[in-house]
Amino acid sequence: MEESHSDYLGMRYEINQVLFSKKSKYQTVEIIETKGHGRMLLNDGFVMVSERDEFIYHDMMAHVPLFVHPGKEKNVLVLGGGDGGTAREVLRHPEVKQCTMVEIDLIVIEACRAHFSQTSKAFSHPRLNLEIDDAIKFIENTKEQFDVILIDSTDPIGPAVPLFSEGFYQKVFDQLKDDGIVVAQGGSPFYETHIQKNLMTILHKIFPISLIYNFTNLTYPGGLWSFGLGSKSLHPIGDFDRKRVQQSQFSFQYYNEDIHTAAFQLPTFMKKSLEGLLKDGPQ
Amino acid sequence: MEESHSDYLGMRYEINQVLFSKKSKYQTVEIIETKGHGRMLLNDGFVMVSERDEFIYHDMMAHVPLFVHPGKEKNVLVLGGGDGGTAREVLRHPEVKQCTMVEIDLIVIEACRAHFSQTSKAFSHPRLNLEIDDAIKFIENTKEQFDVILIDSTDPIGPAVPLFSEGFYQKVFDQLKDDGIVVAQGGSPFYETHIQKNLMTILHKIFPISLIYNFTNLTYPGGLWSFGLGSKSLHPIGDFDRKRVQQSQFSFQYYNEDIHTAAFQLPTFMKKSLEGLLKDGPQ
Repeated sequence: MEESHSDYLGMRYEINQVLFSKKSKYQTVEIIETKGHGRMLLNDGFVMVSERDEFIYHDMMAHVPLFVHPGKEKNVLVLGGGDGGTAREVLRHPEVKQCTMVEIDLIVIEACRAHFSQTSKAFSHPRLNLEIDDAIKFIENTKEQFDVILIDSTDPIGPAVPLFSEGFYQKVFDQLKDDGIVVAQGGSPFYETHIQKNLMTILHKIFPISLIYNFTNLTYPGGLWSFGLGSKSLHPIGDFDRKRVQQSQFSFQYYNEDIHTAAFQLPTFMKKSLEGLLKDGPQ
Repeated sequence: MEESHSDYLGMRYEINQVLFSKKSKYQTVEIIETKGHGRMLLNDGFVMVSERDEFIYHDMMAHVPLFVHPGKEKNVLVLGGGDGGTAREVLRHPEVKQCTMVEIDLIVIEACRAHFSQTSKAFSHPRLNLEIDDAIKFIENTKEQFDVILIDSTDPIGPAVPLFSEGFYQKVFDQLKDDGIVVAQGGSPFYETHIQKNLMTILHKIFPISLIYNFTNLTYPGGLWSFGLGSKSLHPIGDFDRKRVQQSQFSFQYYNEDIHTAAFQLPTFMKKSLEGLLKDGPQ
């Protein structure tokens, strides 16, 4: 199987077996069994997660904001993330009283429930509230207030396009409590600088604190990838207490208290590319 | 062009033009012009450097040890690194009085001199001493003492195999001054844990300080890559003075004083994989 990222870059994975393939209203959803990366979920031919490296993305999306946010009874919203991996990590935190996950595509849920138990086991968690709905409609209609909102979307193609708009983030801001934090999939610093700049321009405009942090996984082109973070009052380093991570006694594969802070240290080319779009709070 | 990393992973680059192709005594050396990554140097079909991302590897190999080492008149040795990029970054430091670069394969030098000026411009630098020689023979015969030694080799295949041995690193240790530092290409934390463990076992055995640090580039499989560091006395974080980087007024594309420290913060799976092989100095 070759995943084609552009007219000049592709990645080849060896397929042992195609386990699921169905065209939904939004995209073609496939689950394949690969030779070296375990099972993979593909949307329209793009790798979303693999069993071998999904822990990295999900660790970094969920634990960075949840270990900054001090709330004792948290209400968390995941928009997208149909494989269940982000919800799985969120629900490891006992203070999360409810995690609502809103996935637009029922076929993704069906596919993962049947063939990707490593992440979809979250679907049967008693504190998960799974809604099949359009994230845009959900955020416009909900009356709930959240402590943390995670935008676990694809790049801005297909159903994810409206998730990269200012109007959407204004609604996200409105549904966050006064110390709320949003984290969003932020694209490749190498190949998708336009996506990253667009996202950070929006976060910078709407949130008092707008920052970006990095991780590296195997199955995204170029390896290096980012999450954009918007916060109403809490600073992800200044308000981060390393001891909380140690006290949690969670067993991690990627995240830890050192990686938490290191992830916000940007290579020079990113600092230049995002100049004026990052801020640590009101001066 | 497809670069095949294993029986389950490959990367495809679009070639506009093959600029150089020659079988040397050691390997097939090629320079290709790609569509999205500029020119690339390939040894036996593996991407060594591309014009688009070579700055990352070379920044991180050269500047991390050179900004830790306080010497006022430094003598630096680069073993391998035939493209010239590492020597180019070393020679930006005015206190480096001489940089000796030992490349085994004259054909690599010829290829880069003709078609890869972005890195090979270092070859004409007045403080460069370029030797075409076997690194093993050179280190066994040299009478010189060095402040910093950089092992800019391929993975342990072909001519680089003996560079991953204890005997070689014992000689490196002997040729380093009392505050000397060695940095060596350390492989992929994902796909090459055996290479990494082997290297760190050797550095741990021979050097009072043995650490590993990460960077991410585009054209190595999985993105995340490492450098092993052995030091006789200086600690790469404890003895690092951020102000020296600012005072240098160097313009960087990847390296900076924040990335310097962040690069040593390891994901949990690396901490586990390298347990017992990293040390911060005599207890």
